[in-house]
Amino acid sequence: MPPSPIRKLVPFAEQAVKQGKKIFYLNIGQPDIATPEIALETLRAADLKVIEYSHSAGFESYRRKLAGYYQSNGIQVGHENMIITTGGSEAILFGLMSCLDEGDEVIIPEPFYANYNGFAIAAGLTIRPVTANIDNGFALPPIEDFEKLITPKTKAIIICNPNNPTGYLYEESELQALRSLVLKHDLFLFADEVYREFCYDGHRHHSVLNLEGLEEHAVVVDSVSKRYSECGVRIGALVTRNQEVLNTVLKFAQARLSPPTLGQIVAEASIDVDDSYFKGVKAEYISRRDMLVQGLNAIDGVFCPNPGGAFYTIARLPIDDADRFSQWMLESFSHNDQSVMMAPASGFYASPGLGKNEVRIAYVLNKDDLQQALVCLEEGLKAYPGRTEAPVVTTSENGTL
Amino acid sequence: MPPSPIRKLVPFAEQAVKQGKKIFYLNIGQPDIATPEIALETLRAADLKVIEYSHSAGFESYRRKLAGYYQSNGIQVGHENMIITTGGSEAILFGLMSCLDEGDEVIIPEPFYANYNGFAIAAGLTIRPVTANIDNGFALPPIEDFEKLITPKTKAIIICNPNNPTGYLYEESELQALRSLVLKHDLFLFADEVYREFCYDGHRHHSVLNLEGLEEHAVVVDSVSKRYSECGVRIGALVTRNQEVLNTVLKFAQARLSPPTLGQIVAEASIDVDDSYFKGVKAEYISRRDMLVQGLNAIDGVFCPNPGGAFYTIARLPIDDADRFSQWMLESFSHNDQSVMMAPASGFYASPGLGKNEVRIAYVLNKDDLQQALVCLEEGLKAYPGRTEAPVVTTSENGTL
Repeated sequence: MPPSPIRKLVPFAEQAVKQGKKIFYLNIGQPDIATPEIALETLRAADLKVIEYSHSAGFESYRRKLAGYYQSNGIQVGHENMIITTGGSEAILFGLMSCLDEGDEVIIPEPFYANYNGFAIAAGLTIRPVTANIDNGFALPPIEDFEKLITPKTKAIIICNPNNPTGYLYEESELQALRSLVLKHDLFLFADEVYREFCYDGHRHHSVLNLEGLEEHAVVVDSVSKRYSECGVRIGALVTRNQEVLNTVLKFAQARLSPPTLGQIVAEASIDVDDSYFKGVKAEYISRRDMLVQGLNAIDGVFCPNPGGAFYTIARLPIDDADRFSQWMLESFSHNDQSVMMAPASGFYASPGLGKNEVRIAYVLNKDDLQQALVCLEEGLKAYPGRTEAPVVTTSENGTL
Repeated sequence: MPPSPIRKLVPFAEQAVKQGKKIFYLNIGQPDIATPEIALETLRAADLKVIEYSHSAGFESYRRKLAGYYQSNGIQVGHENMIITTGGSEAILFGLMSCLDEGDEVIIPEPFYANYNGFAIAAGLTIRPVTANIDNGFALPPIEDFEKLITPKTKAIIICNPNNPTGYLYEESELQALRSLVLKHDLFLFADEVYREFCYDGHRHHSVLNLEGLEEHAVVVDSVSKRYSECGVRIGALVTRNQEVLNTVLKFAQARLSPPTLGQIVAEASIDVDDSYFKGVKAEYISRRDMLVQGLNAIDGVFCPNPGGAFYTIARLPIDDADRFSQWMLESFSHNDQSVMMAPASGFYASPGLGKNEVRIAYVLNKDDLQQALVCLEEGLKAYPGRTEAPVVTTSENGTL
C-alpha cells in the first residue's frame, strides 16, 4: 500500500516542531470548527449504565432520524435504506466488498481520496484512474475517457462530490452523463457525499440517489465527521435502494457486531442542530476559501482553481517536485520560526508522474493562521532551490492556460 | 457468508415477544454488568469542544496506559507494541489481512467464534477446523490433528482463550504444545484473549505473548468490550512484538483514519477501575456459571462441561436438532408465558453435521432470570416433539462417557 500523502511527511513535521518551529497543518482534513453544543450536551446527559452494542445496522432511532435528515435534503429514502457504519471509511469498504468481486475493476477520477487505495487493496480490486485537469478546476473528465477504460471486469465508478482532494462540486449535467454511462454498462455508481453541506456560491448539491433509474446502481457513502465536525465519533452510513446490496453489507456489519454506541448518540443529537450552525460554518469556510484562493493566486507562479465545495483545494506551484518541496519546507525552511505542512498531490493520483507540482491544501485553520501560512508559503517558494523558472503549465482543453 | 448462529433466530424471538412472551436471551454476549462508574464519569466530565480524530494507532496516552495494564498482568510489552482498533473485530481483520495472503489457510479449533468466518472471507482465507470435543470440555485437540491439516498454504493458527463459545481455558501445557507446532512450521499464532479477566477456580490465564521464542509469531487480539462491560465503545487492540506486522496493520489503520475517540476516553479511564470491580464481576459470573452448569446437568439427558473461563458454555441436549429445537422454543413453546433463546451450536462448527444437538448459552443474565430460563428449558425439553429417547452421546478419548 503506498504511504498516505497526508501522513508521509509527519516525521519531518515532528522533527520541525522539536526544533522549535511552529507548523501550520494544511495537510489534514481535521476541522477546527466546534462540534454542535447540542450533541456534546446530549452525550454528557446520557443516562448510561452499560455501554451496550447497538444493532449491527445501527440504532433504529438513529436510522429513522437520519432518514428524516435525508428527506429534508430532498433525498427520499427510509431508515430501511441505510446501514450505519464505523465512519465513512467502513461504508466504502463494506460497499466495495459487497458489490464487487476480487479482481474486479473500479474507475475513479483522479486525483482522488488516497484512502480509496487501501480499501481497494483490502477488497482485492484494481483502480483504473481517469485524469481530471487542474486547468478546468478538476471538472468531470470526458465520458469517452471513462468508456475507454471499461472492460468486462469493470463493475463500478466512484466519485466524491463535493470532491476531496480538489473541492470540485459536480454539476447536474455531469452526474447525468455518469448516469447514462452507468446504465449503459450496468455498473454501480458509488458517491462519497460526506461534504454535502459544504457547497458554495449558491450552487446546490445533487445526490446520485436522485438520479432516475439508478435505484439498483447508486450507493452513497456518508459520514457525520465533517458535517458536524465530529471526526472522532466514527459514524458513517451506506445508503442505497438496492436491497441485495444492503443485505450483503449487513452481513459484514454483523461480523463486526456494532458501530460505536457513543458516536451514534452524538450523531443522532447532532441532527437537531439549528440551521444557523451550518450557515455559520459555511460562511466561515467561504471566507477562508476566498482568502486562501486569492492569496495563492497572488503568489508569483502559483495557480489555484476556485473550488465549489468541501474545504480542500489543489494548487499548482512553480516547483520541480511537491514531495521534495513539502519536505524541504519542514526540514530546511522557516519564516519567523514558522512553516507549513502540505499534502503533495502526487499521492492522490494513481497515474505515475502526475501531480508532481501540485499540493493539496485544506482550509481547516482560522484566517489568522491561514494568512500566516500563506506568507510562509510565498517566502518558501522564493527561497526553494528547486523552484522552476517559469511555472510548469499544462494547457486546458481550449489551448489556453 | 453463513448466517450468524447468534442472530439467525432473531425474527422468531421478535415474533414471540409480539405474542406477549417474555424471552430470556441466552444467545448473546452482551453482559448486563455495569460499565465502571469511573469511566462513565470521565466521559461526562470530558472537556470536548471538537470531537477530533485520534492518531490512527490510537491516542498515545491510551497506548501507554494500556501497556501498563499488560505489564501489571505480567505481559511485558510497551506502547510501541500495539495498535488500538475499532473493537477486537477490527484487530482480527487487520491482523489476518496483514499476516496472510489471499488463498492462505488458517487452522482454528472448532467450535469457534462464528464471526471469524466473516473476517476470513473478507481477507480471502480458508479456515481449516480441528474438532474439539464436548466430552473433555473442549480441551485443545491433539497436536497431531493440527499437523494433519498443515499444507504449504497454512500460515496461522487462531485460538480464543478463554474460549468463546466453549468457555474452555487453555492450560499452559496446551499453549506450549502450540508453541512447538508454530515454531516447527513457522506459523503465526493468533490468540483472541478478550476474556483474559474471566478465569475461574484459581486458574491463571496464560498469554501467547509470554511464550518463549514467539516474538515474531504471537499476535494478540484484545478488546475492552467484555473486560469493562462496554461493548458499545468499540475499542480493541492488536498487540505483537513483530514490528513488520505492526507496520502493515498501521497502514490498514491509517486507511480508516482513527479508532473511536469517545471510546478511547472511556477505555483509558476504565484502566483505573478499582480491583474490587473485577472481584465483584468475577464472583458474579462464577455464581451464575455454577448455578447454570449444575442446573443444566440436573436436567434429564443434558450434559454440560464446567467451563473454566469467559461466560459461555456449550451444552448437549437430548434433541434431534438444536436449530429446530431453538426455533421451536420461540415459536411453539412457552412456560408461564416465558421461553428462552439459545444459539444453536452448529453455526460454531465449520465441519458440516457437528454440534447438531448442542447449544451455546451465555450466562449474562442475573441469577433470577437464569433460574427461570433453566425451568423453561427443562419444561421445553419435556414437551419438544423431537426429543431423542436416549441422549445422543459421543464417547470420549478413553471410551467412557
